[in-house]
Amino acid sequence: MRPLVKNRLIAAAAMVLAGWSAAALGAQEPEGARAASNVRSAQYPRVLPDRRVVFRLRAPEAIKVQLDLDGRHDMVKDTSGTWSYTTDPLGPGFHYYSLIIDGLAVADPASESFYGMGRMASGLEVPYDTDAFAVRDVPHGELRMRRYYSAVTGSWRRFFLYTPPGYDHNPQLRYPVLYILHGGGEDERGWATQGLTDVIMDNLIATGQARPMLVAMLDGNAVAPGFGADFLEKFQAELLQVVIPFVERNYRVLPDPQARALAGLSMGGLQTLHVGLGNPDSFAYLGVFSSGYILPRQAELAEQAYARIAAHPGELNSRLKTFFFTMGGPDDIAYQNCQAMLKRLDELGVRYEYVETPGGHTWPVWRESLLRFAPRLFR
Amino acid sequence: MRPLVKNRLIAAAAMVLAGWSAAALGAQEPEGARAASNVRSAQYPRVLPDRRVVFRLRAPEAIKVQLDLDGRHDMVKDTSGTWSYTTDPLGPGFHYYSLIIDGLAVADPASESFYGMGRMASGLEVPYDTDAFAVRDVPHGELRMRRYYSAVTGSWRRFFLYTPPGYDHNPQLRYPVLYILHGGGEDERGWATQGLTDVIMDNLIATGQARPMLVAMLDGNAVAPGFGADFLEKFQAELLQVVIPFVERNYRVLPDPQARALAGLSMGGLQTLHVGLGNPDSFAYLGVFSSGYILPRQAELAEQAYARIAAHPGELNSRLKTFFFTMGGPDDIAYQNCQAMLKRLDELGVRYEYVETPGGHTWPVWRESLLRFAPRLFR
Repeated sequence: MRPLVKNRLIAAAAMVLAGWSAAALGAQEPEGARAASNVRSAQYPRVLPDRRVVFRLRAPEAIKVQLDLDGRHDMVKDTSGTWSYTTDPLGPGFHYYSLIIDGLAVADPASESFYGMGRMASGLEVPYDTDAFAVRDVPHGELRMRRYYSAVTGSWRRFFLYTPPGYDHNPQLRYPVLYILHGGGEDERGWATQGLTDVIMDNLIATGQARPMLVAMLDGNAVAPGFGADFLEKFQAELLQVVIPFVERNYRVLPDPQARALAGLSMGGLQTLHVGLGNPDSFAYLGVFSSGYILPRQAELAEQAYARIAAHPGELNSRLKTFFFTMGGPDDIAYQNCQAMLKRLDELGVRYEYVETPGGHTWPVWRESLLRFAPRLFR
Repeated sequence: MRPLVKNRLIAAAAMVLAGWSAAALGAQEPEGARAASNVRSAQYPRVLPDRRVVFRLRAPEAIKVQLDLDGRHDMVKDTSGTWSYTTDPLGPGFHYYSLIIDGLAVADPASESFYGMGRMASGLEVPYDTDAFAVRDVPHGELRMRRYYSAVTGSWRRFFLYTPPGYDHNPQLRYPVLYILHGGGEDERGWATQGLTDVIMDNLIATGQARPMLVAMLDGNAVAPGFGADFLEKFQAELLQVVIPFVERNYRVLPDPQARALAGLSMGGLQTLHVGLGNPDSFAYLGVFSSGYILPRQAELAEQAYARIAAHPGELNSRLKTFFFTMGGPDDIAYQNCQAMLKRLDELGVRYEYVETPGGHTWPVWRESLLRFAPRLFR
């Protein structure tokens, strides 16, 4: 036996002993790389170099399986009972998706689940070119969960709070606070998990792009969501009467409108508009991500807001240091409503910033929104 | 129109306007109460007064649907395409379950999901008679998520850390630490969510039953789990060389074996035995929940442990202030292994405590284990 062949056999035996799969020994390698959102044991979904994603699922007894990710796509069953589908190239970042098994939409057992769509839905993480959203070798803050009793809802609730690196070690320092709100069908977990708030903030603070701050991630569902003033008023009471006083009592916070920002995505953007424009003495910074009064449904609310602005000319421009709108491009379902609102703000002479990030009404856009908004705060 | 009828009509109209469902107007009320583990919008599963649980799922196109909760149970489809099943009375607390839709095990869209069984599985919360596991009007600590780099695994990892009420406001105080470990197929989220660690500790501390302490909830999967010494050694390196030094460097901790406890359930119990018995100078308190060396598979590991004890007579009894075993009764899959181990400890003259809680190899037993173990610590 030639030495090379012998060495190969020994190496092969060693790999088998070490628990390597046949794939490593020359059988066809699975294509691409496991998505970071897979549960530990799952080999699929896999992301190809061009960001197409391969889904594979063993379900021999199922009659019809679809992937619901940016529309429904039929998966194809092979003779062994494995269903497959390969997407078109996807944008980097977090995408909600579901599997539809014989008509029933469920989360994929191969992926982590996230509260969105009003239920636990699957999340797919497509790799970024940037390291803005990666856990890097920088000082890390903490993500804290805190329970509190709300007299507004009459129940125990909770929020997540990002505290920056050094919060525990600088007991004399007080910090500004960004209050940030999820979208419809989500809750306080949205910014804490889908949003990667702690990772984004750690990276921005480490490079000096953002000031150290607290970020409070609230549950915007103080009552069952709706589109009327009642829903928005109830949330306003929860925020102004319960959450902000609780945070200012329990954390080392600068209790000053100049050190207070409010932002939200989609439904949370509407809450930001309602509370922020209605209380211009409470927040010096507003961020409205993929949102704008919903027309015609919220026309009355919108007109009330514009009338208030018109009645106090110059007030917003002098009170707000930053009034920041982001939008996921023309594909964003809130695009037209946002444009209509900006037109009215222009007519009213209200200063704002507007940034478009391609991606539609999705978390990659909202992560990017926080990445752009946080550096503008508390300067 | 008689006044009574008129008043009823007005009341009915008001209820409709207020968004009440037809059920409130006299249509048949759904039976029982929504499980606390339901997502906001889900009316089922519902818990009946005798703790039977009614599952209901709309899936007209599915051919066969089963509930996998303490065994597989066929659900029954009605003519409208709704599948139903009512369980026998269940014990209070948290139960993993799955739906099996045409052969595929998935999480129920109606419930919250939890990482267990190596994937996101459904959780069902059955009400307790006790308020030991309820969020009560007592001072609340925090549940913190912290990222750290592990030189042992060569990767960024994370743990959860319970900090007791007042941790931030008593900067001169230092605290003891309980390090606590999940079971196989789970991760650091196990004790943080399924285990209700913060709720249990808040309640115990508020009533003076437990001393204020930190509780660090680790990810025991430092490498892919196995039953050999290699897996246990790798975890030991992660705990002793990385996690404990990190915690003692970053938190106000008493860096003293007398102020250090280690506990774990099932796989985490094996890790506790391996690290705790192998390093009796590192932890003064050990908790082994639903565990014991797995025979015959881990016979060699077990014999090594007993030989070490025999070689140092009296060492464990003098070092360990509490050596605490719990077991979910004879139904617990670890029952025989635990009894075999206790017999050997008896023969070796090792002192320990042993508590049985009915419930088998399940989270209700492990919550109860923490409830019993924490009061014994750091006295």
